[in-house]
Amino acid sequence: MRSNRRGRVRRQHVIETALRSFAEHGYRGVSTATIAQEAGISEPGLIHHFPTKADLLLAVIEHYEARSIELIQEALSASDGSYSGALLALAGSHEADPTFIRLFTVLAAESVSPAHPAHEWFVARYDRVRAEIADRFREEQGRGQIRGELDPETLARQVIAMFDGVQLQYLLAGGQLDLVTPLRALLDSYR
Amino acid sequence: MRSNRRGRVRRQHVIETALRSFAEHGYRGVSTATIAQEAGISEPGLIHHFPTKADLLLAVIEHYEARSIELIQEALSASDGSYSGALLALAGSHEADPTFIRLFTVLAAESVSPAHPAHEWFVARYDRVRAEIADRFREEQGRGQIRGELDPETLARQVIAMFDGVQLQYLLAGGQLDLVTPLRALLDSYR
Repeated sequence: MRSNRRGRVRRQHVIETALRSFAEHGYRGVSTATIAQEAGISEPGLIHHFPTKADLLLAVIEHYEARSIELIQEALSASDGSYSGALLALAGSHEADPTFIRLFTVLAAESVSPAHPAHEWFVARYDRVRAEIADRFREEQGRGQIRGELDPETLARQVIAMFDGVQLQYLLAGGQLDLVTPLRALLDSYR
Repeated sequence: MRSNRRGRVRRQHVIETALRSFAEHGYRGVSTATIAQEAGISEPGLIHHFPTKADLLLAVIEHYEARSIELIQEALSASDGSYSGALLALAGSHEADPTFIRLFTVLAAESVSPAHPAHEWFVARYDRVRAEIADRFREEQGRGQIRGELDPETLARQVIAMFDGVQLQYLLAGGQLDLVTPLRALLDSYR
């Protein structure tokens, strides 16, 4: 049992190391040998947990997604009850974690290639998130909180694009440009 | 003279081959050996023109930027004279060239790392384009074409983010989602 626990701790340590490394260099810019070295374990030790670099990538994405869902839940509870408020709280929490933003930005762009091991995951995620956000806006429209002539599908695409785009600007500007201002101005225009 | 011309033609052929390859695999996902093979020349032949992969990347970016400026000029002449019209025409022309979109999306995201050879180029480009777009919106605001209470700097950040974000969605959706609809809705909200 103790060795199982040690195995889990080590596995988690490898995932966190790989997350930082993929965030910095992309999936394509780093080898499992480098990640093993950074994690302070042997390459066979790493391969014991993750037979291929693609397996490690999917574990990193799973870890990312779990954290992302936590942040969304926190944002929903922290907001004034409006969905717009939750999206702005979410942007604020992303700002506090540049590695998190960087990982997503780099992997999403790399994954546009169908040959990338995260391609299907990202395609499915964008479809799912777009549908979820459109549903939320449709509900707010039903309650008169969003102007009736706007198309919820288009609003969902806009919010996702704005989120992704300002994250790229934030990273290129070394954190000097915030995420919240352009997103707030967009959401305000929906009312 | 003929051999100089052959050299230029070959150099251009290598740049176009590298552009497609970087668009597909990113700068990090491809070697100069692969590009030489795809271009049908020897690796020493490639190195004669581009001593390092970073040199080749900068030549590809220069080629991209020249094409980008052409597209912007065309969009400005094709539009009804409004800056918004030109931005929508530009989005339409990007849709017609997925490789062009893909190259930019992948390289911009990779380049958030300060170690990436295109990092400084992308940082400078985003600063410059943001200032240019803000100036255009400021002028339109002066002519009463954009609402007075909006901040031109924020609008510029929004337009760039929306452009980048919808391009990512377009690529992930295999071209099934257009660029123009979300951008038009954004620009309409400025009036």
